[in-house]
Amino acid sequence: MEELIVIKIGGNVIDNESALDAFLADLAVIDGHKILIHGGGKLATELSTKLGIETKMVDGRRITDKETIKVVTMTYAGFINKNIVAKLQAKGCASIGLSGVDACIIPAVKRPVKHTDYGWVGDIKTDEININFICNIIESGLMPVIAPIACDNEGHLLNINADTVAQSFAIALSKKYKTSLVYCFEKNGVLADLGDETSAIPTIKLSDMDELKTNGTISKGMIPKTDNAGAAIKRGVETVVIGHASHIIQIAKKEKGYGTIIHI
Amino acid sequence: MEELIVIKIGGNVIDNESALDAFLADLAVIDGHKILIHGGGKLATELSTKLGIETKMVDGRRITDKETIKVVTMTYAGFINKNIVAKLQAKGCASIGLSGVDACIIPAVKRPVKHTDYGWVGDIKTDEININFICNIIESGLMPVIAPIACDNEGHLLNINADTVAQSFAIALSKKYKTSLVYCFEKNGVLADLGDETSAIPTIKLSDMDELKTNGTISKGMIPKTDNAGAAIKRGVETVVIGHASHIIQIAKKEKGYGTIIHI
Repeated sequence: MEELIVIKIGGNVIDNESALDAFLADLAVIDGHKILIHGGGKLATELSTKLGIETKMVDGRRITDKETIKVVTMTYAGFINKNIVAKLQAKGCASIGLSGVDACIIPAVKRPVKHTDYGWVGDIKTDEININFICNIIESGLMPVIAPIACDNEGHLLNINADTVAQSFAIALSKKYKTSLVYCFEKNGVLADLGDETSAIPTIKLSDMDELKTNGTISKGMIPKTDNAGAAIKRGVETVVIGHASHIIQIAKKEKGYGTIIHI
Repeated sequence: MEELIVIKIGGNVIDNESALDAFLADLAVIDGHKILIHGGGKLATELSTKLGIETKMVDGRRITDKETIKVVTMTYAGFINKNIVAKLQAKGCASIGLSGVDACIIPAVKRPVKHTDYGWVGDIKTDEININFICNIIESGLMPVIAPIACDNEGHLLNINADTVAQSFAIALSKKYKTSLVYCFEKNGVLADLGDETSAIPTIKLSDMDELKTNGTISKGMIPKTDNAGAAIKRGVETVVIGHASHIIQIAKKEKGYGTIIHI
């Protein structure tokens, strides 16, 4: 089996032009098959504010009304996606910007309303991800750059969580490739001491995850990331690393001392 | 040689939700290889206005400053592109939304400043269009839906004219397919009498074009359309039709009495 690396890049890197440039320059020189998944939270919030659309979040998730789905589609699948692809190609990395809508790559359903009505938010049908299309793109030498927008069977655009897209892609593609999943953000990994960047925990066993949540080491935004990492490992993904965007080359090379590795 | 139809859809249809829906329903049932190119002028202007960005036009062309290129990338390659693809797929037409940036489909250069500085506006390198990639997509059964955004070698996003994209695609692909180019808009064709929709001229010979410009039959926005049509015919495109979006099925079937056919 050939190797594949699925990389999720977080909003804080995307929002910082020089950090994004540096990250893309690193990404461009990484050999082998690779997929980039991006979010872009702040830009969507800024645009909403300028347009007078109120941003509502529940547990870190955006409530996506009719105007908000337009805004996130414009920012994620429009400017951020094409800006990243244009920059990557200038750095010699042939790539293609796509959303989950295109070629039905990520079939989704509107999230059913339980306690909270999230609006035009989608849940991914992981088992129906269009693996063949993505494999053809990868084998043709292009890196897919994926924006977290999908649609349902009726043609409604849906906002999907980029961390979950990365997890779903890694799971679906682990049938065809020996797949690594890397969550890149602005910290060195899961930190034992939140205030100390040198305190990244080198490895976390799945069975120790609950304990780390209980004692507060894994908290807030790190909870969905580690949950996604755990789900990926359980469903066939070879390795999952949570680490700093500026260490992507070392993480891709599996050098020791970079990021937190989640394992069974 | 197999047949291919390259269809350009204008802003007035995109801006009208029910007209767009009807057009996409018709497009979905047209057999054979097809490509859709869209613009989306009004939405970009509306968003610019809401954001306090002044819209400057010279001879019907948008002056694209640093903020405007973000706005057009968001609207064209973001919301309009993904909305069209989501709707087409709900109607059973497998499709993929792309911009000229993706897979370097449309290599472009920033327009040199002569009398007017158009800003981040690109000129298409027609001879370098990534035909192989587009052919692979078409042969795999997907319809490409193309937003008129490209980039240069240095990773700058560029606004390109959708009519010209359609012309360039039709020319480039006529090497591989027997290609028809259709400009769809909100009129029945080139009208002999601008106020009379029943006065569409059935056919126009290239050699008669200058006369029709001189006598004012071809004027304003029709000038670049007919110029693009003429250039396409001269460079290998089989047929060019300018017609009403609501007649796309009849035009695709080459039924008589629909649209204006431009010929040598």
